[in-house]
Amino acid sequence: MSVKPVVLRLGKVAYANDAWKNLSKIANVVTIPETTTREEFLKTLKDPKSEVSKAQIITRTFASVKQTGRFDEELAQSLPKSVVAVCHLGAGYDQIDTQYFKDRKIQVTNVPELVNDSTADTHVFLLLGALRNFEYGQRNLLAGKWPSVGAAGGAPVGNDPEGKVVGVLGLGGIGRTIVKRLQPFGFSKFLYHNRNRLSPELENGCEYVSFDELLAQSDIISVNIPLNKNTRHILDAKTFEKMKDGVVVVNTARGAVIDEAAFINALKSGKVRAAGLDVFEHEPQVPQELLDMPQVLGLPHMGTNSFETIKHMEEFIVENVENIIKKGRGITIVPELKGESWIDESKPLA
Amino acid sequence: MSVKPVVLRLGKVAYANDAWKNLSKIANVVTIPETTTREEFLKTLKDPKSEVSKAQIITRTFASVKQTGRFDEELAQSLPKSVVAVCHLGAGYDQIDTQYFKDRKIQVTNVPELVNDSTADTHVFLLLGALRNFEYGQRNLLAGKWPSVGAAGGAPVGNDPEGKVVGVLGLGGIGRTIVKRLQPFGFSKFLYHNRNRLSPELENGCEYVSFDELLAQSDIISVNIPLNKNTRHILDAKTFEKMKDGVVVVNTARGAVIDEAAFINALKSGKVRAAGLDVFEHEPQVPQELLDMPQVLGLPHMGTNSFETIKHMEEFIVENVENIIKKGRGITIVPELKGESWIDESKPLA
Repeated sequence: MSVKPVVLRLGKVAYANDAWKNLSKIANVVTIPETTTREEFLKTLKDPKSEVSKAQIITRTFASVKQTGRFDEELAQSLPKSVVAVCHLGAGYDQIDTQYFKDRKIQVTNVPELVNDSTADTHVFLLLGALRNFEYGQRNLLAGKWPSVGAAGGAPVGNDPEGKVVGVLGLGGIGRTIVKRLQPFGFSKFLYHNRNRLSPELENGCEYVSFDELLAQSDIISVNIPLNKNTRHILDAKTFEKMKDGVVVVNTARGAVIDEAAFINALKSGKVRAAGLDVFEHEPQVPQELLDMPQVLGLPHMGTNSFETIKHMEEFIVENVENIIKKGRGITIVPELKGESWIDESKPLA
Repeated sequence: MSVKPVVLRLGKVAYANDAWKNLSKIANVVTIPETTTREEFLKTLKDPKSEVSKAQIITRTFASVKQTGRFDEELAQSLPKSVVAVCHLGAGYDQIDTQYFKDRKIQVTNVPELVNDSTADTHVFLLLGALRNFEYGQRNLLAGKWPSVGAAGGAPVGNDPEGKVVGVLGLGGIGRTIVKRLQPFGFSKFLYHNRNRLSPELENGCEYVSFDELLAQSDIISVNIPLNKNTRHILDAKTFEKMKDGVVVVNTARGAVIDEAAFINALKSGKVRAAGLDVFEHEPQVPQELLDMPQVLGLPHMGTNSFETIKHMEEFIVENVENIIKKGRGITIVPELKGESWIDESKPLA
């Protein structure tokens, strides 16, 4: 019989096998089969014969939603009493309805910061591609049309950063990393909107404006806000109206912060000239209409799909687990749970 | 009868119509039909009834090669005696065999510098895309495969700039602009190879190495050298052998600096893991084998295909023409003709 705390690991480990092996010295790591359904998962959580029912810490990946479904009210209430923490592998944790975990005094951690670089790189790629109409030319190249359509593969002429205003919606860790990368490209200025103005150091030369000013003044809108009930469809038919004609929109945050149906209309009308999208409202389902548009440069949610980033994230989630075991609290508690007294008072598990 | 110097303009003007209109006050600007063949062009040059045969300055675009063919020995020798200058709209002037124009004491100008920004932007786009395997994911996204292939659209995991060495082959105006843009991304270091070492100011932190050292040490090879008889196929089967396994190659210079057949083999074997290519050896013809590789992110020579850059270049070529008319010499004489005494002694045309 083991006295080690039970850690339920949901989703695959790609590169941090050594870190998990090391963790198994102080924890009993259990998993569920890849073919598990939500129904089976909820049942297993209550099955006293399963180690899963004794879990104290749960780690999860974005893709493990396939086995468990969203971490919603039902799931929160189905968790064994033993659970003290849910550790999410990623910056965006919109698959977790944190209030129900808070109600049960279950800590929730995410992995911020470590995703900044790779997400920002993806963002810059999409921004440059959309601004320059590269997707048009690329499609013609791949279709073998270049010889017939002529210069630049028949792509309409794009734009340079020169004289363009970048509006950063959400100047958090990712937004700031994007701005640092874009600074040498020669944009005329960077605006940003957050709920609250940042310190001059964090602003790093970006100009704080209201949401409506950002919409009205930006040639490029760079979307970097988390998805939650306040930000869902924050860009919709009404807000597209307030943007400049021919604006370029780039989103590497979450698809549902944009009303995708309204977005398609804005692209069709030319209100939005081009878009760079790593995320979609109902991904992995993407409307064929959107895919068919050569003014849309899209990626299948590859923002953090790099060896180094995944390895760092996977190793960091193990650090979070270790910290909870040894000190009673995760390193990176999500903002809405920070400062909860029951977290501050939590005790080591071992 | 006009006493204005005759300027033969080959190729289209997209955005500098005002500048050309202004030029027509001091020059007689003549053109040839778009349907002209090289044979017809060579004939027209010698037709005393055509204004073309009185041309003193010729301006040309990359695409006008369709009407005239290359500016080779035959063409140089077919030019009327009146011609004093050929002004090329672009940085790369490999369509012009400059020695034959030098023999005839005809100045050749190009448009350097102004192409740096847009070419560097294109280069950064291709470099990030190749490094991160974005092309794989994008193809699966467009093919509607995302829902079935899973996370990141089934794309193999790419790499972050972290810890990677960028080897810049050709640290000229474009190479230096690329480095300035890439500096905030977190690469471990930048190497470069030029025929001669640059001043520390121009090096901007890049480390000068031999050609072979650059091949051996770089995780990413960034190709930014002009095409000429010394650089044709400078990357070939032998040099690919000297590179690191899994190297990423990015080329926005000229296709023929790489032996394309050897390149395809190196991509097939995995020696070159991924490539970002704006140029191809026999463009607009591109081997289907190359197009079929998802590890190749390609564009149909869109490096300078932006409104701002084309406008600046078109306006600058008019400045070159004006300078030749008023002062006898172009502003941006190509390097191999610089310092020629006959240019230094040349006189205003009007």
